[in-house]
Amino acid sequence: MTMPAANPILIPELRVMLAEGDTAGLCEVAKELHPATVAEFSEGLDDGELWRFLAAMPVGIQAEVFPYYPMQRQVELFSAADRAHLGPLLESMAPDSRDDLLRELNPEFVEEILPLVAKAERHDIRMLLSCPEGSVGSLMTTEYASLPAEISAGEAIARLRSQAPDSESIYYIYVIDAERRLLGFVSLRDLILAKPTSIVADLMQKDVIAVRVDDPQDRVVDLLARFDFIAIPVVDDRNRLVGIVTHDDVLDAVRQEATDEAQMSAAIAPLGEGYLEAALVSLTWKRGIWLAILFATAAVTAMVLARWKSPHAWLVAFIPLVIASGGNSGNQSATLVITALSAGDCRLSDWKRILRREFVVSLMLGMLLAIPGFLLGLAYAPDPTHALVIPATILSVVMVGSLVGCVLPLIFRSLGLDPALMSNPFVSAIVDVVGIVIYMGIALAILG
Amino acid sequence: MTMPAANPILIPELRVMLAEGDTAGLCEVAKELHPATVAEFSEGLDDGELWRFLAAMPVGIQAEVFPYYPMQRQVELFSAADRAHLGPLLESMAPDSRDDLLRELNPEFVEEILPLVAKAERHDIRMLLSCPEGSVGSLMTTEYASLPAEISAGEAIARLRSQAPDSESIYYIYVIDAERRLLGFVSLRDLILAKPTSIVADLMQKDVIAVRVDDPQDRVVDLLARFDFIAIPVVDDRNRLVGIVTHDDVLDAVRQEATDEAQMSAAIAPLGEGYLEAALVSLTWKRGIWLAILFATAAVTAMVLARWKSPHAWLVAFIPLVIASGGNSGNQSATLVITALSAGDCRLSDWKRILRREFVVSLMLGMLLAIPGFLLGLAYAPDPTHALVIPATILSVVMVGSLVGCVLPLIFRSLGLDPALMSNPFVSAIVDVVGIVIYMGIALAILG
Repeated sequence: MTMPAANPILIPELRVMLAEGDTAGLCEVAKELHPATVAEFSEGLDDGELWRFLAAMPVGIQAEVFPYYPMQRQVELFSAADRAHLGPLLESMAPDSRDDLLRELNPEFVEEILPLVAKAERHDIRMLLSCPEGSVGSLMTTEYASLPAEISAGEAIARLRSQAPDSESIYYIYVIDAERRLLGFVSLRDLILAKPTSIVADLMQKDVIAVRVDDPQDRVVDLLARFDFIAIPVVDDRNRLVGIVTHDDVLDAVRQEATDEAQMSAAIAPLGEGYLEAALVSLTWKRGIWLAILFATAAVTAMVLARWKSPHAWLVAFIPLVIASGGNSGNQSATLVITALSAGDCRLSDWKRILRREFVVSLMLGMLLAIPGFLLGLAYAPDPTHALVIPATILSVVMVGSLVGCVLPLIFRSLGLDPALMSNPFVSAIVDVVGIVIYMGIALAILG
Repeated sequence: MTMPAANPILIPELRVMLAEGDTAGLCEVAKELHPATVAEFSEGLDDGELWRFLAAMPVGIQAEVFPYYPMQRQVELFSAADRAHLGPLLESMAPDSRDDLLRELNPEFVEEILPLVAKAERHDIRMLLSCPEGSVGSLMTTEYASLPAEISAGEAIARLRSQAPDSESIYYIYVIDAERRLLGFVSLRDLILAKPTSIVADLMQKDVIAVRVDDPQDRVVDLLARFDFIAIPVVDDRNRLVGIVTHDDVLDAVRQEATDEAQMSAAIAPLGEGYLEAALVSLTWKRGIWLAILFATAAVTAMVLARWKSPHAWLVAFIPLVIASGGNSGNQSATLVITALSAGDCRLSDWKRILRREFVVSLMLGMLLAIPGFLLGLAYAPDPTHALVIPATILSVVMVGSLVGCVLPLIFRSLGLDPALMSNPFVSAIVDVVGIVIYMGIALAILG
């Protein structure tokens, strides 16, 4: 959840209300607006003021507003809080938002505050916290509506009224047996449209699409995107319902993943927080570690090049052009394969088709660039035969670059690694070394 | 909507059922499964078989299944279809899926088939088609539930039963006046939980977040992600409700945009279709146009370098290393700024903070890389003073690279262009030229 800058206009008014102890007025403001809006305009208050502002509202509304503050602010607020305040707030928060926050806190601090929470909730918290990062469990919430199969639609609606589940989880009702095993689901729409005397078992869809709590997060993203559901149920290894993953958390995960992948593709370890919020030391580290690796690869290129004692000095001017052509075409291939794999447009088993396509396309691209390369070579080479080194190298380097670019992500995927780790600068760095060797080899072959 | 490969196991069974004319059996299969699953396993049939398969189902189910075929297949099926079939199918399709398909068809063909559709639907189709690509209108559907403000909750539910709106649009009910102006909204949950005698006007939320039909698509994505809604209402310039944008279309748009941006960042004009589906000529064109532009920039580097007659031959070996350091650091900065702008983590007005951060971080990174650069230089330079050229250049190039990398996307954004157009290879190409000039300048200053 990213937030625009705090609205500076309302802050003075809020401060006046806080100073006057106008609890009723503050509560009114919070009740009338969407929790995201309340968080947005109150973000500019300092920690103490913000806690007093939150304290003016019923704890149910506090718990709705709190998760809309940026994660770093939530952590800061928790650390600065009066302990007595944390128990009720944690109990009222949606389980998935609470889990997101607790994962960011120091584990010792979490152990300190957990006794403030009622026992049933504590069990829930520990269960969610035990799900590994990146698994379906780390994305799910334990708040959902469930019903037995044998009751009528009318009774089902009456029971829903008494459960009054959270807004995001009332629209699909999961049908379970006495062991909580998932039998099917029925949408609130179907319940409303059905005759009140119809039995849930006859209304429910039995072909239910569910995920396992230990499945990777990508799986629930793909399924929700494919089937257009509002939520997907999560089961354990014995098909017992343990939670649901809702559309809003999937959307947040997809947006976060897009940012992470873009950063990886530019050789940055994913920040995992806003660019302006990241500490400069952490930013330097997340870029520096990759720059150092790329530097080491470039040092190999330099060492190879240092051994090249060609009498043809004009060839030097073309070094950056030749290696850039290979690197650019390699980046394109790598990115096409990475995006196709992550969008599900192709699979590892398509590798033969991918290689064939890359061969044809890079042959055409290589020939396309070889023409201006030859003309440019003619302008600097002592004679036309010598100039041939340039187009021959460009054609080879573009083709090798594409090949390397498409093969590396496939290898990463086959090793079970994220193909996006194969960043563009890394592909370029490898293609650079190869490009220089090809250049030297072709020059030697043509010019002797 | 991307699809995994067709399930090959069921195809023979389907063919047998088609050959036997087992309409009841085919219809049964289609009714029991989710439309996405039906599309997935029937995708392997040829066009004629697929139309016969679809014809076995009621048109309502056909209309649900059809949008789950890949877009290219939908276009192909439409072109191959019996015209008599198209009218009822188009009338039953969800307005947003229908709009997506019609936008892909040849406009003359669309004009040919539109008379097959009932007049009211035709008006709807033309309205949606007139919304420019990338606007909220191109993403919205005209199917939604609406009610007047003065009725009771009980009556509201009774009216919903008779409207029986589509599953994705029943969960928020928009409250409108006689001129269809948007007054507020009420969730199905609130209607169910309310006393049947309560009046809708008292139940509804008046602080309604809506978008304009001509707003850019990004706006509805940001709002839906921020407020966690299932749908957002769309109004015209007089605040009249014209449609809604639902969570599933936003998720698809976000995933498509992530793919487009990743491709742009690697200097590929976005494919807009699956990698394996794209024609090789189109793939070559979408890569070639950018490679040609990058080639022209690299040619400038070559021409600058050709003028360099240094007596210090050892410097040549470091050319790729020096320019790669600048390019890599420039890519990192550009990507950080682009992702931060698109996630809403920073705005154009933060440019001073961005420049300050990039200055500090690139100074640290430049110094970090200068150390191994100096050691490497010592190994090849005739004496330590000469070796200083390398760390001095690396420090400058890393800093200039970061500066260029962060400024270019900001300039693009300020011109109203997509900052993601500032692809990584393009940043590298610009930093390459600058890097060579810096290298030559520093070598001249230190070595004379």
